[in-house]
Amino acid sequence: MTDGVVIHLDEAGEDKHRAVLRNALNLLPEVPPGTAVELVTHGPAIDLARPGRPTADALAEAMAAGVSLRVCRNSMRSQGLTEDDLVPDAVPVSSGVGHLVARQREGWAYLRP
Amino acid sequence: MTDGVVIHLDEAGEDKHRAVLRNALNLLPEVPPGTAVELVTHGPAIDLARPGRPTADALAEAMAAGVSLRVCRNSMRSQGLTEDDLVPDAVPVSSGVGHLVARQREGWAYLRP
Amino acid sequence: MTDGVVIHLDEAGEDKHRAVLRNALNLLPEVPPGTAVELVTHGPAIDLARPGRPTADALAEAMAAGVSLRVCRNSMRSQGLTEDDLVPDAVPVSSGVGHLVARQREGWAYLRP
Repeated sequence: MTDGVVIHLDEAGEDKHRAVLRNALNLLPEVPPGTAVELVTHGPAIDLARPGRPTADALAEAMAAGVSLRVCRNSMRSQGLTEDDLVPDAVPVSSGVGHLVARQREGWAYLRP
Repeated sequence: MTDGVVIHLDEAGEDKHRAVLRNALNLLPEVPPGTAVELVTHGPAIDLARPGRPTADALAEAMAAGVSLRVCRNSMRSQGLTEDDLVPDAVPVSSGVGHLVARQREGWAYLRP
Repeated sequence: MTDGVVIHLDEAGEDKHRAVLRNALNLLPEVPPGTAVELVTHGPAIDLARPGRPTADALAEAMAAGVSLRVCRNSMRSQGLTEDDLVPDAVPVSSGVGHLVARQREGWAYLRP
């Protein structure tokens, strides 16, 4: 049994971020009710979680629909960012790659668009 | 037990498509007999499934060897394509990302070259 | 139960290789003791396993910390390389993609940074 899906995003770029947000949004109606969908960002991809980005509307739409946004604390630290620099509802995790592995150990599916 | 392998392709580009088709072909002798190998395309990657592309021979070779080609219907719709626009034997799935998750829930392995 | 993690690397490029080595190194303290972390290279990525590359120090650091480096023999053959052309401790596997699938069948987690 899979209880959720982690979507791995570690790339920069508005087009990439927009495409992955659309993937996450489109996935929601395809999974059984109650299945969690987490977008896990690390490295340059955590820029997606900062307010005022061109993808802000697409991110808000995905989150309102049920996508959860996770942000790597290691990446935040190395980029000098704190939680105050992120959009509300973004959830830091101690390590992006560690979180992706932990979720798979729990039986979650993995996507890397 | 894994009954199959899904190979995730969502990128455009002849070189990329050629490399992934080679990966799929090379994988076949490495998995136990009866293991399904599905190449799941969505977004710009569904161009691979259109006839007359420069990768047509490589695709035909992979499919003849046993690789199954799946094409995202959401992507087809947004690009104005129907099954008639695809090579014979291409199999549409309602959602590329949904299919990748469903297969993992069935125990299949996942590759994203 | 996951006994290990495979990290899939098939891209060329010093920056990419450096980032993935850092991902592998950062993953080690995040997984339970005894969890194997294998960096599986194929295609142009096997250049990472050749001596004298700009990433040699980062590779040595990751391997000293416990990351295991696997190199696809199919890719070695097509590039005219033998084990003598690789850094000591690099471990050839018959097929990179085959190895990634086999490890997932054993319950390992998969990352494709």
